[in-house]
Amino acid sequence: MSVIDHNALESYSVSGIEHRTLAAARDGLSDIEVWDDLLYPGAATPLCRHDCEKVVLVLAGSGELEIEGETSSFAAPCTLIVPRGRLNAIRNPGGRVMSLITVFGATPLSTFAADGKPAELPWRSASNPASVR
Amino acid sequence: MSVIDHNALESYSVSGIEHRTLAAARDGLSDIEVWDDLLYPGAATPLCRHDCEKVVLVLAGSGELEIEGETSSFAAPCTLIVPRGRLNAIRNPGGRVMSLITVFGATPLSTFAADGKPAELPWRSASNPASVR
Repeated sequence: MSVIDHNALESYSVSGIEHRTLAAARDGLSDIEVWDDLLYPGAATPLCRHDCEKVVLVLAGSGELEIEGETSSFAAPCTLIVPRGRLNAIRNPGGRVMSLITVFGATPLSTFAADGKPAELPWRSASNPASVR
Repeated sequence: MSVIDHNALESYSVSGIEHRTLAAARDGLSDIEVWDDLLYPGAATPLCRHDCEKVVLVLAGSGELEIEGETSSFAAPCTLIVPRGRLNAIRNPGGRVMSLITVFGATPLSTFAADGKPAELPWRSASNPASVR
């Protein structure tokens, strides 16, 4: 299908993160996956690495980006660039909700924890069919 | 650089479209390019094809997506999926400004007109350095 209504997508809430997968392999794609995430104050993404490039658009909020142990501060509106294979995390230590659009250069996505082991995502990013929430 | 301030990016206005390149080869990427575009009422993207997948997030507005002669209506919030190599255009015939985030699965980007000839973009998507607008 060419047009995907965001109101028909499944939404996941876990550890202060509200997640929807906007585009992925389920939509016939092989090179692009797109996530829409809200990080509530105090929330953080787990330290992980992917076997593809990652670009994060920060639409609202401010926080910290960690890449291989180096931390940068950021505030919306900005773009975060995470090269392929780098261990990274995004944290929201502030008092506002952070709104992120995350783009990956592959789908389905392979995610690895800091110890190098495959990490399971709490959402089925590549295969979950759209459904009314 | 890991954090790109959107307020430091160059902006282009042409044919009713206001454009900024949020991420591209200039940022060290090879697999992802991201655009931020406003289409004012009456504006349309030219019919073109790319040698990569294209995903468009419609944040505001409504309009028409044409892919290989088939037209679909859409309204925000939604995602548009354009498979690799398909001739496509987005039109805003309505009375509201359309806000789009466009993701390509390659950078630098190769764009072709309907006649198959390489199309020049009005902005230097892959190479323009960030500068104060």
